[in-house]
Amino acid sequence: MSTTTLSAPDAPNAPDGPADGDMLTLRQDALHPAIADPSMDSMRILSETAMKFPEALSFSSGAPYDGNHDLADLSFHIDRYVKHLQERGVPQQRITRLLFQYGPVNGFIQDDVAQMLRNDEDIDVPAEAIMITHGFQEAALVALRGLFSGPDEVLLSVSPAYVGIRGAARMLDIPLEAVDEGPQGLDPEAVAAAARAVRATGRRPAALYLVPDFSNPSGTVLPLQARRRLLEVAAEEDLIILEDNPYGLFAPEGEAMPTLKSLDTAGRVIYLGSFAKSAFPGARLGYLVADQPVTGADGATRTLAQELSRAKAMFSVGSSSLSQAVVGGILAENGHTLRPATRELAAVYLERLQVTLDSLAEHFPPEDHAEHQVSWNTPRGGFFLTVEVGFEAGLGEMERCARDYGVSWAPMSMFHIDGGGERQIRLGFSNLAPEAIREGIARLARFINHTPRA
Amino acid sequence: MSTTTLSAPDAPNAPDGPADGDMLTLRQDALHPAIADPSMDSMRILSETAMKFPEALSFSSGAPYDGNHDLADLSFHIDRYVKHLQERGVPQQRITRLLFQYGPVNGFIQDDVAQMLRNDEDIDVPAEAIMITHGFQEAALVALRGLFSGPDEVLLSVSPAYVGIRGAARMLDIPLEAVDEGPQGLDPEAVAAAARAVRATGRRPAALYLVPDFSNPSGTVLPLQARRRLLEVAAEEDLIILEDNPYGLFAPEGEAMPTLKSLDTAGRVIYLGSFAKSAFPGARLGYLVADQPVTGADGATRTLAQELSRAKAMFSVGSSSLSQAVVGGILAENGHTLRPATRELAAVYLERLQVTLDSLAEHFPPEDHAEHQVSWNTPRGGFFLTVEVGFEAGLGEMERCARDYGVSWAPMSMFHIDGGGERQIRLGFSNLAPEAIREGIARLARFINHTPRA
Repeated sequence: MSTTTLSAPDAPNAPDGPADGDMLTLRQDALHPAIADPSMDSMRILSETAMKFPEALSFSSGAPYDGNHDLADLSFHIDRYVKHLQERGVPQQRITRLLFQYGPVNGFIQDDVAQMLRNDEDIDVPAEAIMITHGFQEAALVALRGLFSGPDEVLLSVSPAYVGIRGAARMLDIPLEAVDEGPQGLDPEAVAAAARAVRATGRRPAALYLVPDFSNPSGTVLPLQARRRLLEVAAEEDLIILEDNPYGLFAPEGEAMPTLKSLDTAGRVIYLGSFAKSAFPGARLGYLVADQPVTGADGATRTLAQELSRAKAMFSVGSSSLSQAVVGGILAENGHTLRPATRELAAVYLERLQVTLDSLAEHFPPEDHAEHQVSWNTPRGGFFLTVEVGFEAGLGEMERCARDYGVSWAPMSMFHIDGGGERQIRLGFSNLAPEAIREGIARLARFINHTPRA
Repeated sequence: MSTTTLSAPDAPNAPDGPADGDMLTLRQDALHPAIADPSMDSMRILSETAMKFPEALSFSSGAPYDGNHDLADLSFHIDRYVKHLQERGVPQQRITRLLFQYGPVNGFIQDDVAQMLRNDEDIDVPAEAIMITHGFQEAALVALRGLFSGPDEVLLSVSPAYVGIRGAARMLDIPLEAVDEGPQGLDPEAVAAAARAVRATGRRPAALYLVPDFSNPSGTVLPLQARRRLLEVAAEEDLIILEDNPYGLFAPEGEAMPTLKSLDTAGRVIYLGSFAKSAFPGARLGYLVADQPVTGADGATRTLAQELSRAKAMFSVGSSSLSQAVVGGILAENGHTLRPATRELAAVYLERLQVTLDSLAEHFPPEDHAEHQVSWNTPRGGFFLTVEVGFEAGLGEMERCARDYGVSWAPMSMFHIDGGGERQIRLGFSNLAPEAIREGIARLARFINHTPRA
């Protein structure tokens, strides 16, 4: 409830109105509070740091490996999708319209995604349970908009968490409560306790957000037993789980864990998928799996994904047909399974993880910890790891490090919901070649060694 | 503020929890109220009616003419944009990264759009005042999120209005007040009166939405004098104007009106642009022009478009690189002016408008109005016209007409914010060839003549 007006004090406003020709100046604090909230800058910082410091080696983002990207691929994938439709007997005029015109709100490659999910994730849902979205971000917004309708409904989120979930909740004015994770990810009993604590304040915990596999930012993996228990907790506490899984493909061979969605026999999980890492980020394509039946006033039952279509329509009308065709082409070309296609890519990331760990150990021998005060976790896969340093490492330190030492990273405090992580940094190693990682960690070591412990 | 739980009554929930294996069933009325609101279905209906009734001739949407679309164009436009960047000396690796990786939140073709706006619309703003968006819909969401922060802030909207604005406001729980338009579009004095009426209830009218050129759904054009007066009213009543202009290019030659933004010397207008009609809808690409200076707590001044970047990041991370490249290629190929390129297209639409008007006159001679009770307006351009009929023409009638008479249209009541338009239909003639229009109006005439006046 704001009583400020848009105009700055030096521009007199209603009811008198400014003199003709006076240029309106806005005050930042008259805009939505999120606009003035530095934590809402986190996505922009993650997306743009590499561009802002082009000379620096960038551990700042989760940008995927792009050494195998070729501009010619774009046309190839689109052509491949067109061929896929032709093989299924879709008339040429219908294909052209699909690519150029307004399309179905929930998308047109749900069948392809459903096949992929059966092959790769043991998730067996009909196409009607899938919505194609403008990346994870829109999937999260649509799910949150559907599930939340008032200030008494609270989203529980793992903390530290991917900045996009905090941003999505903030855009919709949804209150967020943090559940701190440990080295093994989220503790299901901590989730239950958090849900009960929210309920004790007269509010309702409606959903829980987490990344069970190679979490962004911490790199943790939720153990199998904790996955099963978390599903029980969701049923006991009447929670919907928003499972975000961009990194699950990048486990060492034989170590892939079952998703919560594949273990979910009670309809507690909405699965949020992304093609940013398995295809490429520029496509901005993701999807939502919501097979829960919803009963309407008319007695009819539809899937939650179909019901959420009303929100999707008003967020984006539909997803980009070009991006859908490119991803559809990739899926068709790979027989609707991405695991074999990404095995080589997974090996690239695992090598980079190992080089990062080895370089850290070289510069910061564990036996000298008392001196350098540097330690880190050792994820089994994914894109990220956490480094603890002996001083506060915020955005200012990161920018100084990028400018003066030629290496950028992300302050872990950016990902904490209620404070924390001030002395930690997130290293994203996914888009640096081994040689660049070694050089980057050497630069980082110089920065750390030159920075007073405090 | 909802106290309902997600679970249906037959699925007992917290604190006892359902028995293991019980499948969660959701009640529609436990979701956000917009999900159960039939008016939120309007976008889906407009987008999907043509697909739902493939045998019917469709006057139901604003789908642009697609007779000149060729799948090969997609690769051509992307290649053209790559060449454009090469000509400007952008290194190949940077180009590849731009197409595949995470990019700048506000986009990468703002320079190209700024040039186009100078050439085509006499709007002279720097690239920093432009944000590339996932279509008009995201531009509206981002602008609304920035300008509105509490339940006391009200959006004024022309009524009837494009369904997307009502949906965007609804997604963000922003209250909407209708300002009814007349045959000449919105009356500026009615806007002033509406703003004062809102203020009299203790709330603040923060912004006004309208389509001054060939409005969707009615086809009206705001006269020049009313444009000037509306800008005065905005200053007097401290309103921001959200000017939505998808159809301005499609005026008869020499009749294009100056946009509100080009007349705005006081920074009152945020201009919302779309490439859905000038390029193609599948790209889902639009933009927002917000050059208003915003002063922050740090004393620095940035453009409103830059400030709104924090919201854009959390709605979509960034816009599709593929769609930006295609549109960037179209702009480069056309010397950054779309008026000559769309002249032929404008002629196509003007012919279709004329054929629609002529066919209506043939089937419903004005001198027999007392008998058939059918009348219509005569827009000078755009994609739509309004037909008044002698009975209530809602969604049920439309579906019956599509199924039994082979022609679909849109009930005008779908576009009214506070009721109204029950006996009107919107005809979108943009994607039907003249022969199909003649046949479609003949079918419509049969439907109308077989439907009892009531």
